[in-house]
Amino acid sequence: MVIFRGFSASGISRTRSMDSRPTIETETLRFLLDFARSEGLSAHWDAGRNVVFSLPEHERAKHYILVGSHVDSVPRGGNYDGLAGVLAGLMCLVKARRGGEPLAQPVKVIAMRGEESAWFGPCYIGSKALLGVLSEKELGVRHKEDNSTLDAHMEAVGIDMTSVRASRPLLDRKAVAAYLEVHIEQGPVLIERNLPVAVVSGVRGNFRYKKISCFGEAGHSGAVPLAYRHDPVLAMAELLNSLDVAWHDFASKGRDLVVTSGMVSTDRAKHALSRIPDSVEFSLDVRSQDDEMLQNMHDLVLRHAERIERERNVRFDFGDVLWTKPALCHRQLIAELTRSAEALGLEPAIVASGGGHDAAVFSQAGIPTGMVFIRNRNGSHNPHEAMEIGDFEIATSVLYEFLITLQKSGANKQRKPVPC
Amino acid sequence: MVIFRGFSASGISRTRSMDSRPTIETETLRFLLDFARSEGLSAHWDAGRNVVFSLPEHERAKHYILVGSHVDSVPRGGNYDGLAGVLAGLMCLVKARRGGEPLAQPVKVIAMRGEESAWFGPCYIGSKALLGVLSEKELGVRHKEDNSTLDAHMEAVGIDMTSVRASRPLLDRKAVAAYLEVHIEQGPVLIERNLPVAVVSGVRGNFRYKKISCFGEAGHSGAVPLAYRHDPVLAMAELLNSLDVAWHDFASKGRDLVVTSGMVSTDRAKHALSRIPDSVEFSLDVRSQDDEMLQNMHDLVLRHAERIERERNVRFDFGDVLWTKPALCHRQLIAELTRSAEALGLEPAIVASGGGHDAAVFSQAGIPTGMVFIRNRNGSHNPHEAMEIGDFEIATSVLYEFLITLQKSGANKQRKPVPC
Repeated sequence: MVIFRGFSASGISRTRSMDSRPTIETETLRFLLDFARSEGLSAHWDAGRNVVFSLPEHERAKHYILVGSHVDSVPRGGNYDGLAGVLAGLMCLVKARRGGEPLAQPVKVIAMRGEESAWFGPCYIGSKALLGVLSEKELGVRHKEDNSTLDAHMEAVGIDMTSVRASRPLLDRKAVAAYLEVHIEQGPVLIERNLPVAVVSGVRGNFRYKKISCFGEAGHSGAVPLAYRHDPVLAMAELLNSLDVAWHDFASKGRDLVVTSGMVSTDRAKHALSRIPDSVEFSLDVRSQDDEMLQNMHDLVLRHAERIERERNVRFDFGDVLWTKPALCHRQLIAELTRSAEALGLEPAIVASGGGHDAAVFSQAGIPTGMVFIRNRNGSHNPHEAMEIGDFEIATSVLYEFLITLQKSGANKQRKPVPC
Repeated sequence: MVIFRGFSASGISRTRSMDSRPTIETETLRFLLDFARSEGLSAHWDAGRNVVFSLPEHERAKHYILVGSHVDSVPRGGNYDGLAGVLAGLMCLVKARRGGEPLAQPVKVIAMRGEESAWFGPCYIGSKALLGVLSEKELGVRHKEDNSTLDAHMEAVGIDMTSVRASRPLLDRKAVAAYLEVHIEQGPVLIERNLPVAVVSGVRGNFRYKKISCFGEAGHSGAVPLAYRHDPVLAMAELLNSLDVAWHDFASKGRDLVVTSGMVSTDRAKHALSRIPDSVEFSLDVRSQDDEMLQNMHDLVLRHAERIERERNVRFDFGDVLWTKPALCHRQLIAELTRSAEALGLEPAIVASGGGHDAAVFSQAGIPTGMVFIRNRNGSHNPHEAMEIGDFEIATSVLYEFLITLQKSGANKQRKPVPC
């Protein structure tokens, strides 16, 4: 199994997303470009100032499989988020160039910028620009430190902003037969299931409320009997518990769903041990691969909230909601990647992705998309990300097996993503 | 019914508890002393530097009914908490002195210091000193601003600290046939039930946890399926909801109980919309007049917490618990006060007290204790306390009716408090 020794991602420092100042993002891309050329690969900057690698003979291919991920990370992020996937693709090209089995179709590997939201707010800036779906609103957001716009930073980086502003893709979408992404898992599923890699079924969509307020009536904790009490904390507890019960129920039926309230707080300026608070604030983040599941849960949130408002005489103010649609991986690519894993003697496994990835942008643009997760300890977006290099080698082997065996008639046959 | 016109508590500014600097507490006592003497009443400072009023002929009575409350309040408190009760007693003496129906037994009215916890922490400092139950630990607590001890402040006020330190009562407990206290209600029950006054059944005891921590495991909100999730917020929600369900059940069976979590918070330094938090903190305050009910609820809290820890693989750290035993009013005094209210044509009503009162200290010292609540809008310990003067007059009339009709053979017959 050990076919990709000798390259560790951990030697590379990490990066700032789409920041026009001389950044580690650009330095990393230059490092990779030099490395690829030193291996005899073709490597060039694209119109999005990403770097695209291929075998020299595939540089001008009219149709190709695109393999990629991002090189940027978050402040105090780890070594493997994004970059491991870029290297997995690059290692496949190196292996093919060094005389491994030939690739079944032309393959291009892309090292993208700006996947993270750390500096501007929006995610997937690089892949959205590439596919012509970066909105005017997104281009107008400002850098958290220097306050100039994303548009200005992208222009300074050298990106073709005339196309980006006009929502014109920076690549020929029809040339891309499929998009493949290898990425570290950002949750614990592969660790818990003791699997080095898994094929991804799709990226969960979500609806998110950043600040739900519940308003009740303040009072002395000892002096207000149940009949006259309008307690926002107990109202919140009932709502969250109702959603939790529903989650357990759906999960037991095999439905894909996760429910999180990451932030809860009574008002520190007023709250006290012996005071019924007049309000509480909390967040809600509900995710699923299944759009219908998300709609069901959203209906359930509102229905429970209305019932609780009525029964307790409290009031919920939900504030703004953010919806992100699920992005499904392509059924045939899932099958092919699974077959590739099995061909290497691996236990086949398909898991959902909780975090978002560039793959979601490609899937939503109608390009058949596949993903492979690598086992990773300690979650992601923190310095303790811990991918074993052996697991990286296994993931890269699965990708290589896929690229050398994929039939030309494959993914493009059925472009509509379907649930897995 | 209008028999106590012409005296409004709202003219008197409020006070700092047991603070030895020249305070409004002392000023208020002086004001009342002067007023009482101007009405031909006996008035003097006692060994606790409270002021005691009586008809001149009762000044040296060997047995008497003690009527009282406190003159101190909290920072930004209202006009009526405590002081209304002192005035109700004083008004009864004035009426008797001015030729009203004679009192059935000698009556002394006491205007006490230091009921509130605002400056030192402990409550009921004045009544505890009076009854010889102020602990060494309590005497050692320090003023929140000048940092000198309660003991030092009390000594500077002129209190007989030799007795207080030796836990010797400052009054002859056997001389006190009963203790009566009129007080504004600090909850909404009389407002909600449209009653001007009610007889109090007792002061709720409680157990209180100021900071319960629940520890789980952090993660990406989208990336951790139910099977691997250890979410402290949903664990807290389940615990609080379980207690809430139990409360509804007990309340439906007529059991006296209130449950409050006044403070809840995830860690602001770490929490985020898309992060499963690793911990959450919350308070818990459970009160009842019924000691067995409190024990049951405490068992229930621990039982649910253990179950939830097991089921969710989270951990609760309960920290310190504070227990306060319920203080029941005397059954015969409740009956007599109810009869007095009925004699005035009022609807009889008995309610529990959620907040603590000096009455609880007298009850716990074995002195038969009775209380009357006055309707009060907007809760207490805030500048919006709103007692109607007409309701004050009704409460004072009930007290007067009680004092002119109580049989000498009354309360002292049965000294053991029993539940109502």
